[in-house]
Amino acid sequence: MNLETTAGNLQSAFRAIAGVAEPRNTIPVLGCARIGGGKIAVTNLDIHASVKLPTAGKMKGSTAVDVRQLSNLAKHIDADETVTIGEAEGLASVKFNGSAYSLVSLPATDFPDAPEMPDGSPHTETGNAGLAAAVGRVMFAASTEATRYSLNGFSFRTFDGVQHVVATNGHRLAVEALPFIIDGAEGKIVHRKMAHLLVARKQEPKAVTFGDRLARFEFDGLEFISKLIGGTYPDIERVVPKEARPVFSLDRVAALKILRRVAAFAINSGRAVKISKGDDGDLELSARSRGEFSCTEKLPGTILDQNFSGVGYNFNYLIDSLSMFTGETVTFSTTSEIAATPALMTCEADTLRIVQMPMRV
Amino acid sequence: MNLETTAGNLQSAFRAIAGVAEPRNTIPVLGCARIGGGKIAVTNLDIHASVKLPTAGKMKGSTAVDVRQLSNLAKHIDADETVTIGEAEGLASVKFNGSAYSLVSLPATDFPDAPEMPDGSPHTETGNAGLAAAVGRVMFAASTEATRYSLNGFSFRTFDGVQHVVATNGHRLAVEALPFIIDGAEGKIVHRKMAHLLVARKQEPKAVTFGDRLARFEFDGLEFISKLIGGTYPDIERVVPKEARPVFSLDRVAALKILRRVAAFAINSGRAVKISKGDDGDLELSARSRGEFSCTEKLPGTILDQNFSGVGYNFNYLIDSLSMFTGETVTFSTTSEIAATPALMTCEADTLRIVQMPMRV
Repeated sequence: MNLETTAGNLQSAFRAIAGVAEPRNTIPVLGCARIGGGKIAVTNLDIHASVKLPTAGKMKGSTAVDVRQLSNLAKHIDADETVTIGEAEGLASVKFNGSAYSLVSLPATDFPDAPEMPDGSPHTETGNAGLAAAVGRVMFAASTEATRYSLNGFSFRTFDGVQHVVATNGHRLAVEALPFIIDGAEGKIVHRKMAHLLVARKQEPKAVTFGDRLARFEFDGLEFISKLIGGTYPDIERVVPKEARPVFSLDRVAALKILRRVAAFAINSGRAVKISKGDDGDLELSARSRGEFSCTEKLPGTILDQNFSGVGYNFNYLIDSLSMFTGETVTFSTTSEIAATPALMTCEADTLRIVQMPMRV
Repeated sequence: MNLETTAGNLQSAFRAIAGVAEPRNTIPVLGCARIGGGKIAVTNLDIHASVKLPTAGKMKGSTAVDVRQLSNLAKHIDADETVTIGEAEGLASVKFNGSAYSLVSLPATDFPDAPEMPDGSPHTETGNAGLAAAVGRVMFAASTEATRYSLNGFSFRTFDGVQHVVATNGHRLAVEALPFIIDGAEGKIVHRKMAHLLVARKQEPKAVTFGDRLARFEFDGLEFISKLIGGTYPDIERVVPKEARPVFSLDRVAALKILRRVAAFAINSGRAVKISKGDDGDLELSARSRGEFSCTEKLPGTILDQNFSGVGYNFNYLIDSLSMFTGETVTFSTTSEIAATPALMTCEADTLRIVQMPMRV
């Protein structure tokens, strides 16, 4: 094993694949990066990431070394410093500017191979068109509970002729339109770990390939191959209300400020707030925990359905949702009694839609 | 209980006493702030803090309310908003601009009284003269182990006609000169919690009073009364080497960079590095963990004693110490064999002195 590169090249390569390998693993090779074939690869068995490492001359041979040790070391070398990495007899060496580091290396053959995407899997050139951006807007709604594993990610759903990404934890749901249709993605579930890697890049994948059990996301010089979550995603078309009538709307920024105040105050309690019609006919926000505290705030917004009397929500969920929209006014609509049915939250020209279950208050 | 103030006044008052009250306490009143007599007070039984709260008109009566709830709430109100706080029948109310909050209140009499400083305790006007700054420079060396409780703070020691503050954990010691002598402070031990409050103010106390078991630190409109740690502080005059001869010196900033690199690389191991004379006669830094890794770096500095062969230190301790100095060159001196005796670290005109025990490597 032998290569010559710069510390800057190593830094960007490790930044690109950060968060995939799991340190302190019982299987040592899973805490390692495989270096070889012009690439650095890491895996956690669910996600396999590999990134090109630009080198002076050809990279010869391959090896696997502790990814934290090598990436930490690279971070602390000046970016334009030339670094040579070698390997012999179970020891890798890293040399630069008179400094010499050596660390345990494992045979590159111990490192799990990348899962193979079946030939002919549908491949979509997504260009710069907003998949990662859309995923970044819905992931707040995904579940993190292992008991609802199929909700631990996002899925793809086409309705009204548009493909959407969607995430839900059963209490709330967020759905965002995609500017294109990704072949083979319909109904597939991508794990939130892969979603977070996609979003963290702050860059759009240039191509996406979906197999039956695998998805591949390609960036320039970088690819992630992720196992998909098995199982069936909920039939969200039935959950997103159609022809819902507006009940009330909130001044987004002002309402957020008030919700954050209530959340800061209500630290020792449940998470329910009530939005209701105050004595003066305007919107009011209130929270209480019997024998602990209570509070009442005017809520800047407009009642659009004069039959509206009140509805309860989890204030953290409202904060998440209002933060995710970008316009001025968020409208809550429903097809039935708002205190007992999911509300559809929309915001002016924003294509993001959020469905929020009420809480009993 | 009744007062009118602004959210800004509440915010600065709570900022000044932050970190004293311990939330999630089994004694609820210790999680409370006592409001009354123009002041807000909090206590953790070791430290009693009280701060003036500017009000419009007089503050009437007194009460005690959850400090986290009230300070969180104040943080989320615009600073120039007028806030009124009232209390009746076990419920405190906070009102501002149409918003109304109420929370449980406890009788102010449940709140522990401030410990009384004995009459005639020595009082020193310290003006703006550098006690907090000196404490901020030595506290890194203090112990955090409950088993060595008397080392869990800093002490005062006069030698060579100058009073010093000193902190040690038994493996390293830092001592900084004070620009004045504080009456009654000699040999007293101030707990690190109080030290951190002093340092966090980024402001010098204007007066300090030492009783036998208590110290009072006064700022404008703010005072802390802290119990002192009982027991005897080590006789540090005997530990700080006198007439030590210089053995080697380090280029502080460059050496720090290299030490941080080694620390980042050596994540899975012990904390020892060896500083030695390399084959070329220059300083060299090396670290190894058998069967795990090894590294060698040139260390920018100068060997001042040609008999020097090598010495081991904890690299985190070296990083702490080198970070605390402000000059260019840190000199390591000793009275005997450096690998077996404490080294005195000094830096040009800096009055900070650090004594560092070696490690066997």
